[in-house]
Amino acid sequence: MADNSHLDDDLMRAGEPAEEYVRPDDRIDDERLDEENTLKAEYVRSVRNLLESGDNGAVYALVEPLHPADIADLFELCDSDERRDLAIAITDLMSSDVIAELNDYVRETMMEALPAEAVASIAEQLDNDDAVQLIEDLDLADQQAILAELDDDDRVAIESALAYPEETAGRLMSRDVVAVPEYMTVGGLIDFLRDDANSGSNLANDFYEVFVVDAGHHPVGTCQLSWILRTPRHIALADVMKRDQTLVPVTLDQEEVALMFQKYALISAAVVDESGRLVGQMTVDDVVHIISEEASEDALLMSGAGEGDINEPIRAAYGSRIRWLVANLGTALIGSLIIAAFGAAIEKLVALAVLMPIVASIGGNAGTQTMAVSVRAIAMNQLTEANTMRILWREFRVAALNGVTIALLVGAATALVFSPMLGGVIALAMLINVITAGLAGVLVPVMFERLKQDPALASSVFVTMITDSMGFFAFLGLAVVSGVAA
Amino acid sequence: MADNSHLDDDLMRAGEPAEEYVRPDDRIDDERLDEENTLKAEYVRSVRNLLESGDNGAVYALVEPLHPADIADLFELCDSDERRDLAIAITDLMSSDVIAELNDYVRETMMEALPAEAVASIAEQLDNDDAVQLIEDLDLADQQAILAELDDDDRVAIESALAYPEETAGRLMSRDVVAVPEYMTVGGLIDFLRDDANSGSNLANDFYEVFVVDAGHHPVGTCQLSWILRTPRHIALADVMKRDQTLVPVTLDQEEVALMFQKYALISAAVVDESGRLVGQMTVDDVVHIISEEASEDALLMSGAGEGDINEPIRAAYGSRIRWLVANLGTALIGSLIIAAFGAAIEKLVALAVLMPIVASIGGNAGTQTMAVSVRAIAMNQLTEANTMRILWREFRVAALNGVTIALLVGAATALVFSPMLGGVIALAMLINVITAGLAGVLVPVMFERLKQDPALASSVFVTMITDSMGFFAFLGLAVVSGVAA
Repeated sequence: MADNSHLDDDLMRAGEPAEEYVRPDDRIDDERLDEENTLKAEYVRSVRNLLESGDNGAVYALVEPLHPADIADLFELCDSDERRDLAIAITDLMSSDVIAELNDYVRETMMEALPAEAVASIAEQLDNDDAVQLIEDLDLADQQAILAELDDDDRVAIESALAYPEETAGRLMSRDVVAVPEYMTVGGLIDFLRDDANSGSNLANDFYEVFVVDAGHHPVGTCQLSWILRTPRHIALADVMKRDQTLVPVTLDQEEVALMFQKYALISAAVVDESGRLVGQMTVDDVVHIISEEASEDALLMSGAGEGDINEPIRAAYGSRIRWLVANLGTALIGSLIIAAFGAAIEKLVALAVLMPIVASIGGNAGTQTMAVSVRAIAMNQLTEANTMRILWREFRVAALNGVTIALLVGAATALVFSPMLGGVIALAMLINVITAGLAGVLVPVMFERLKQDPALASSVFVTMITDSMGFFAFLGLAVVSGVAA
Repeated sequence: MADNSHLDDDLMRAGEPAEEYVRPDDRIDDERLDEENTLKAEYVRSVRNLLESGDNGAVYALVEPLHPADIADLFELCDSDERRDLAIAITDLMSSDVIAELNDYVRETMMEALPAEAVASIAEQLDNDDAVQLIEDLDLADQQAILAELDDDDRVAIESALAYPEETAGRLMSRDVVAVPEYMTVGGLIDFLRDDANSGSNLANDFYEVFVVDAGHHPVGTCQLSWILRTPRHIALADVMKRDQTLVPVTLDQEEVALMFQKYALISAAVVDESGRLVGQMTVDDVVHIISEEASEDALLMSGAGEGDINEPIRAAYGSRIRWLVANLGTALIGSLIIAAFGAAIEKLVALAVLMPIVASIGGNAGTQTMAVSVRAIAMNQLTEANTMRILWREFRVAALNGVTIALLVGAATALVFSPMLGGVIALAMLINVITAGLAGVLVPVMFERLKQDPALASSVFVTMITDSMGFFAFLGLAVVSGVAA
């Protein structure tokens, strides 16, 4: 037992007054990073200039102080033809941390340019979950060539991960977990971990909880490391652990994994196979990327921008965007057909042509607003079967308020500029269209969700189609019926 | 020293074969939760029916097995007038964990309905950072009444948090940190933590790293708990800790904090004040909510849906959405003025009125695609001054490909249906508009970012304005110049 009589004095707590100011040895790096922790443009420029002049020594000296995550950013900020030169200039700095932090597209093109042995030797340095990411996007022949270069343990681990579908817990989990029996004591665990560290362990260095398992390797509880550190040696882990834990099925989709981590505020969680045995763990640092990806995916899908990654090859970006534009062309065509049906009215009263884009455009905007809210609520599991009717009623009331306001504004202006009759027509058309937009904004995404389709992807084409057609039809139709264009 | 001769046998590692299958004592709860961990509609319905019939005992029995996060979800799924009754029926289950998980709006309305003493006694049970969230949205008089009820320590902590601007690290951080001097040993730290736990500590129960500080309370290094557990007792923390750590300035905006956690894959981080002293810590479970909020905020801002929370009061939702619709009315008006200027041409050739929405609509879609990509890249610090020109050139090429494809499709169809001349006019107008849209989709958000405005908020009004006006102007203008409408 160490003497700890001095401990209370030594232990300092936050918030006590400082005697003197000493600048901490931190990472705030004013030369290279701006206040948002982003590489400065001048810094990137000087690296690129040195690369062009071929002075690899100077490039190395400039890049050497960077954090691996910033080196990864530097690659992304360089042109694609400069990335190879940069990799050659700073080979020693190309740690597994840099590779793991690289954007998927940038990493993929860099890996494709390297021979299989080189990729394999990078994969060997990586944690298994990062190695899977490195390999999964390559084509099958490249994958086989790289796997053949790996040692048995790594190959088996990576192959078993690749056997799970993409974007599931099985692909993303780490296989390194600390799993111990219930009757082990706190002291026993600490001794085991120290011995293991001493003997050149293959346990993960960073972990946040210890999983307690039964004889069949099924999780029965979990201990956070802070609980272990605060408990005397002789206590059994069974008395420290929490029995109620969140288990991640190995085939669970990454989006659901991310929602689980958010909902239950997890730092790590056990991954179990079909028979409930512990096969790995997910940690929050991996999930953080998924949360951010999934949340921004919705925005990109709703606007038809596909993956929407600025590092995506131009051909892929063109492919996903043109499909969307063509789908919208179909939508716009329906609007045109409606207008064409009212061609005679427009010839008589050209004011209809002047005003009709206003009706369609405001309807489209109102629909997009409600749709964005609904898609987000569906993604967060906040809009479920249990409250669909209530949310629909809520959105109807918001839409009615918006519709009345816009109808009054546009109606009054039109009455002044053109005629009171036309003002009445456009006001009514606006009201109808904004309310239709509000209802469509909830119902279309909910319908896609029920049909097990991604609500973000197709909703916006349908909502725009509905609001455009309804806008033109209500406005031009009312104009004819009312006799204003007669 | 405990006997650890048996340890290697006891310690089980993931992946070993199971002898028998035993269903783990986990939280998979088929009666109440569906496969997405969401409360089932039937379950919510039966709770609501029992609430209506006033059978509080039965409500309690139904709700009791739920996880606090699911109880919070249950409140959100109930109508607002049912929430009070539910709270009364399950008072004992209303733990601080439930309160902390509640949606901001739902929590706020529930707290406003309670007397100050009741809110204060809830605030006392919460961690300080959660208590700040509970109190910060109430009005000043309510805040004062609640703070007066708190004991001195909690009041001082919450007041000092409220002194920082909203959405900064100072508001969000936890003040409970374990800060120790460099010369402390691993054994000394473990003994201290055990003594502290024994003596009814006020240290946080869950923590992931220990901060090493100098005499002036400036952080000099950090130890993850897993490193401590694997190190012999006599080693000094100075030899275990990592000196290079990411420090969060106390005034840093939450969006930047979230990016820091993502970029450097942090689990927790020290928060330092202006003179570099340790004042608290941020942990990733708090940051996860911010990441998800900030990522979805962009989608909601781009579509003008404000906060976009389905629990937002209707008046607030109306307020933010109508402002956006009115702004878009201004935009649509510019389009109308352009059309009005070409009224004579439309009277001569009504086909122009039929086709013009297609040009504007496809331009709008193309602009939104590029804008969504740019806004996301700016938010992730991927589109910076260092690569703006390259991204602009990239988007120009994608837009040119899209523009040519769409121009050929629409041009050919128009030539067939109307006239080759009109086909040529609309093809050229489409090409001009799609390329303009692509450039505007990058330049407008970048411009707002440089002007320190949120690129997500205003970009879409401006981009639509540019694509609408350009669409109408190019199409109608070319029609007049070419003589097709003469």
